[in-house]
Formats: sequence, C-alpha cells, structure tokens
Amino acid sequence: MSEAKSELPEVIVVGRPTIFKFYDEELSKKYRMLKSWESSLALENYICKHGQSVKAMICSPSHLGIQISSSLFRLLPSLRLIVTTSTGLDHIDLVECRRRGISIASAATLFSEDVADFAVGLLIDVVRRISAAHRFVNNGLWGQFPLGSKVGSRKIGIVGLGSIGLKVAQRLEAFGCTISYQSRNKKPVPYPFYHDVYELATNCDVLVICCALTDQTHHLINKEVLRTLGKKGVIINIARGAIINEMELVQCLEEGEIAGAGLDVFENEPNVPKELLSLDNVVLTRHIAFLTEDSMRAMYELVCGNLEAFFLNKPVLSPVLDD
Amino acid sequence: MSEAKSELPEVIVVGRPTIFKFYDEELSKKYRMLKSWESSLALENYICKHGQSVKAMICSPSHLGIQISSSLFRLLPSLRLIVTTSTGLDHIDLVECRRRGISIASAATLFSEDVADFAVGLLIDVVRRISAAHRFVNNGLWGQFPLGSKVGSRKIGIVGLGSIGLKVAQRLEAFGCTISYQSRNKKPVPYPFYHDVYELATNCDVLVICCALTDQTHHLINKEVLRTLGKKGVIINIARGAIINEMELVQCLEEGEIAGAGLDVFENEPNVPKELLSLDNVVLTRHIAFLTEDSMRAMYELVCGNLEAFFLNKPVLSPVLDD
Repeated sequence: MSEAKSELPEVIVVGRPTIFKFYDEELSKKYRMLKSWESSLALENYICKHGQSVKAMICSPSHLGIQISSSLFRLLPSLRLIVTTSTGLDHIDLVECRRRGISIASAATLFSEDVADFAVGLLIDVVRRISAAHRFVNNGLWGQFPLGSKVGSRKIGIVGLGSIGLKVAQRLEAFGCTISYQSRNKKPVPYPFYHDVYELATNCDVLVICCALTDQTHHLINKEVLRTLGKKGVIINIARGAIINEMELVQCLEEGEIAGAGLDVFENEPNVPKELLSLDNVVLTRHIAFLTEDSMRAMYELVCGNLEAFFLNKPVLSPVLDD
Repeated sequence: MSEAKSELPEVIVVGRPTIFKFYDEELSKKYRMLKSWESSLALENYICKHGQSVKAMICSPSHLGIQISSSLFRLLPSLRLIVTTSTGLDHIDLVECRRRGISIASAATLFSEDVADFAVGLLIDVVRRISAAHRFVNNGLWGQFPLGSKVGSRKIGIVGLGSIGLKVAQRLEAFGCTISYQSRNKKPVPYPFYHDVYELATNCDVLVICCALTDQTHHLINKEVLRTLGKKGVIINIARGAIINEMELVQCLEEGEIAGAGLDVFENEPNVPKELLSLDNVVLTRHIAFLTEDSMRAMYELVCGNLEAFFLNKPVLSPVLDD
C-alpha cells in the first residue's frame, strides 16, 4: 500500500480546502496528497521538507492569512500548477506566477449559481425580515412585527456584473426588481450602467457586491457610498469582506444610516464584528454562499479533471488566463 | 366633530384587520368605523347593539375563531357588503352570503407578489440553511456547517396554481428549478400537471402550498404525502395552516422523514407547536408573507375604493364572484 501510494503523483495541499472535508478519501486515492495541516510543522517548514519535487498544488482562500506568493514559491522549485478551489484569486500572487511559469486553474464559474441563489436568499431575508421574524416566533411572540418592503419595489445595484452578478440580476428580474450595475466596462445587457459606484448608489436602494477583491475594489464601499444609498438602503455581500470598509459599515448599521445588511463574508474571517451580532437587521453567514452538496461534488470532479489533464501534459480544464 | 362623524357612513369592523394597525386614522376620517375590538362587549353583543342599520363590514381572518356566518348575519339585517382584507375566504360562509344577497370584496391578487416572494425566500432559507447559518455565526461559531443543496437542483411541486402559485413558479424558474403542479384543473402553463397530490409528491422533493383552504384541501398534506416526498423533502406553507396536518408534519420533521420546512402559517394561530421551536431545519414566521409597507398601502387604497364604490351604488373593485 505505501509502495503503491508512493507511485502516485505528489500534490501539495495548502489551506485545507473545503473539498477535503467531503472528498478527502477519494482525492487521496488518486494522488499522494501532502496535506500541510496534518503535520505539526509550520507551513513553510513542511513545504521545505516535502516540496522539492512537487509539481502541483491545491489551495483555497478559506484559511485566510496564507498568501500563495514568493515566500512559498521559493520552497517549491518544481511547481508548475496551482489548482485553487475558489473563484476569487486574491490569495495568489498572479504576477509572480506568470514570472515563474506557474499555471493556475480555478473554480471559474462553477459556484456562480449557488452564490447567486444565496445572494438572493440573503436579500429576501433582509428585505422581508425572515430571520428576524423567525427569532420573533421562536421567542414565543406573535402580535405586531415591523413591516418589510416589497422585493419588486427595490432598485438593485449590482457591483461587478461578472458571472455571479449576471445570475443575481436574472433571478431578481423575475421578482420585478429594477436592475442597474457598476462594472469596469459596460456589458451587452439591458440594465443601466454606471461607471462610478456613488452614481450607482444614488440610483439604487440595494447594493449586491459581486466583484472580485483587487487593489481597485478594496474598501470600494465606504461610509460615503453607504450614506448615498440612504436610510432604506440594504447591502448584500457574497464576494469578499474587504470590498466593504467593515468598520464604517458597522457604524452605518448601528446609527441607522442604512436599513440592513446580509453578509456572507467578512474582512478578517473568521472574525465577525461583535457589534453586528446584536443587530436585528442583519443576516450573517459564514462564507457558505458557494457551499452545497452539488457544488462540492462538481468541485471534486473539476479538481480531479484539472490534475489529470496536467499530469497527462494536456491543457487544464479551467485555466486562469491573463487579462 | 362628533356630529360631523355621525354623518359618515357606518362600517362595522370585525377581527381587527392588520390594515387598522397602519391606516386607522385615515380610514376613520372617511367612515364611522365601528371597531368591535375597542369595546368591552363581546362581539355578538357589540354587533347586537350597533349593527341594526350597518350596510358594510370590514373583516380579516387574522383573528381566527371568528367565523363570518349566520350567527353574525342575523344581527346585521342591513348588511350588503363584506370587504375582507384577505385573499383567503375560509372565514366567510359564502353560501349564506349568496342566500342573503351579501356581496364580498376581497384582497384578490393584491398580495400575490409579496406572498410569492416570501415563499421563495423561505424556500431558499430552508434549502440553503440561511437562518440556521445565522444562528451558528451569532453563537460565535465558524468552522464546519452542514451542507445545503443547490436551489436549481430541486424539483418543485406547487400545490394550487392560482395567482400566488404561478408567481412562485415564475420566480423559481429563474433559479433553474424544475416545476410541476397539482390543481383542481389543468392550466395553460408549460409545467407538468398532476391531479393527485401523492403523484406530485412522488415526482418532487419540495412542495410549496399555495392553494385555498376548503373542505377539500383541509389536511390535504398528511404523513403519507410527506413520506412520499421523502427524506430530502422540504415543505413550504404560505397558504393556510390547516391544509397540512400539523401534528403529522411535526412528527415527520422530528423523525427526519422529511428534511425541513418553512412555515408562515399554522393550524391554530397564534399557537405554534412547541416541538418546532427547537428544530434547526425549520424557519417559522408569523403569518407575514402578505405584509409589506407596499401591500398595506395598496390594501388601504383597495378597501377605500371598494367602500366608496359600494356607497355610490357602483360595482365594487375586487368582487368575489361565484365559481
């Protein structure tokens, strides 16, 4: 068994990707998975010890703090492929990958539908106060309950009209919502386009954050944007926590400068601002918008497909291409 | 003031309709509203005292137990119009109304969009475990959380394809769900039709209850239907509690015979079965699916429009017509 195992191609796994919580056994049958989290060594020492000949890596951003950059690449001189189990690439130094000739395969649009569904679920929950109503009933109350507002009466601003943003828009159109969007470039869609996020916020009362986290989008949503959104404003974030200035969001929510928020992501996961826990107008979930039985199965198949192609010297299935 | 008021047409109000929580002042300026709940007299005594010449009634089913039937009609010999602020008519004796020549105006389809939105919100919440995830985060937890399933992978069965059911179907189509329905009659829609609710449950894994409560639909959903739906089954009810055999539903949820439920209505409101409060796979709300700022405003306008038409001897705006 151990001899057979040693013949399997080696893959280093960094950051304990969620997929290993569900498909560890299946994955470990196909590759010799070097699971850094199973070692008592610090990550860099572990890689130093095992990484010399490793050609492929699986990583995820779920274990934040780990940046896939030079300090790791120096310890992995044979590395030629990174398979990240995420759509976002903010944990990987793309420039350095290009320089070193390391290819990247990502989740691409695999999670788009699940994430879009979840965004709409959070939006309905906040606008119609479902979680708050559930707490109300669970506390043995009936009687008067604060009114929500009609979903279809809301003016939705999508921040970042990529694969997820577009699916959010398509779903919300079925509810009769008015859709606008902000994006780097105008897209071939019938929705009004705003280049500037303030202009979007001026014309909307709900913002759904669907863009990637980059230097340009870091703290894109600050207190000025939130105040522009207004007192009936609702913000939904299923993208990355740091796209919003979280401290300013907390302040705006506490002071009633906006009406509510549905947040699946946070600036310093797994830390959730304590102030949010006591608010009745927010719905908080733990970065699970992408996570379903279906998406985990599909992700498992995509990871296997990418590794298989790579070790057969074929093009990977979901390559990250240069802009 | 009191003299001016006494010249306004009288309207008896039974059951404290929700609309009076938001538009009491406006309504009371237009009509002399005889609000039974403001009197210390029992309802029948109050009507006996004030009802002799009253021609119009406003009622709602929110105060369950009050049936608008012969025992009240006998005390209201001049009654010619009932305006109910509900879509459902299960609290009104329709046969007796017809016999006595009393017209009925209802909310008709006024609440359809709000109720359909809420049904979809409950469905996403249960299937993607949003409220449960919120409790998880609020308890200071991160880490592993049970997987939900993809909304679009679910096979939805709509029980009762009226105005609400159709809007639920249209919304869920945008998520990629497969839709079927059960109804008294086949409708001109592209969804598969089942005459029998067992057949529907056999072919679906989510049931959304959207039908009226009648003698035929009372306890339509019993343990046999739920068991047919299966262990991954989810049930959403935004119609009337008694369409489901609640005791059998509680049992099926407790024993894992179905996976979860989203319930806005209960068999004996305001009583919610205590067993449900401890379950993590149910979302419970207090009959608020119809309730938004927008629907209350629209309802206020419809009630006024119906009364105004009636007192001008014109046809009411939202008449309930015989089948």
